[in-house]
Amino acid sequence: MMIEYFKGIMGAGFDSESVVLEPKLLKFAKGEVLVKAGDTDPVFYFLIKGIVEVSIPGEKEWIYDFFFPNSVLAAYSSLLTGKPSKITIAAIEDCVVEAYDWTALQKQYKTSLGANQMGRFITEQIFLLRSKREIDFLSKSAEQRYEELIQSQPDLILNIPVHRIARYLGIHPESLSRIRKKMNS
Amino acid sequence: MMIEYFKGIMGAGFDSESVVLEPKLLKFAKGEVLVKAGDTDPVFYFLIKGIVEVSIPGEKEWIYDFFFPNSVLAAYSSLLTGKPSKITIAAIEDCVVEAYDWTALQKQYKTSLGANQMGRFITEQIFLLRSKREIDFLSKSAEQRYEELIQSQPDLILNIPVHRIARYLGIHPESLSRIRKKMNS
Repeated sequence: MMIEYFKGIMGAGFDSESVVLEPKLLKFAKGEVLVKAGDTDPVFYFLIKGIVEVSIPGEKEWIYDFFFPNSVLAAYSSLLTGKPSKITIAAIEDCVVEAYDWTALQKQYKTSLGANQMGRFITEQIFLLRSKREIDFLSKSAEQRYEELIQSQPDLILNIPVHRIARYLGIHPESLSRIRKKMNS
Repeated sequence: MMIEYFKGIMGAGFDSESVVLEPKLLKFAKGEVLVKAGDTDPVFYFLIKGIVEVSIPGEKEWIYDFFFPNSVLAAYSSLLTGKPSKITIAAIEDCVVEAYDWTALQKQYKTSLGANQMGRFITEQIFLLRSKREIDFLSKSAEQRYEELIQSQPDLILNIPVHRIARYLGIHPESLSRIRKKMNS
């Protein structure tokens, strides 16, 4: 599924034939955890069905992001550095994923053109996502960010409780209620 | 220089022979701009000498980062998306850089194992940097971030005016003065 998906969006230059990976198909029920903060398991996932939430636990729990099907799910900093994950990835709907062995991918990186093309492309996409979120945080108000969120991810509003969205925006639930009232008036 | 540098840190698996790029050696005097917000030039740099500052211009100018020798300098989101750069990269000391043609690298990505290995590695490093900064912003106080900064980059304090460091930390210069007084007392 993952390699087929990237074949569709990376175009003709992608040497997909040289990517040899054997994922396992797994199911996670709503509420189950795929990656827990503190974990160091060398594994990453490709989301086929469902929605996951990525959070940073702590005194003031922070919701880092939500992911929908056709997303790569990973504690990527942890995989790259070997240090324990700072994030938790949890299913907020019943999920179906492909599970990939990170160590097998590292071996492929030594010789496979396609594996490197795909790894580079995925890393570029992850970078673009984080970079956009960082710049948005620095340069846009919570209200602007909420407006953009409901435009780009209308599903989010239908499927995720308001207090979780507030944590994603980095504001109090009451502030989000005020923003929503203002927008609807 | 850049390829030699990555050969040193990427280890034996890196097929550097298959990377064929022809950089130009350029100098930028202190105060000169390498990339300006709004630019779409398909070029990136490798810093050999000097220090650069990456900022996001606007009502409340934001300093995104400082870079020292052996760093790749790029409006990377802009290169990846083709959209105008949101950031400005400026020399804050006299700089010597290698300038690389982004379009030539894209061509290499179609066939060269080494180019993809290097592109993947650079993107991973940029991701790790941005990710650390994002999580630090969400989870640490300005005081903690300042302490870590002077430990990891003591040069920064010697070479960069206090009000620029305050903008990097996202606080008022007066707040930084208070933090510094507190630390020295």
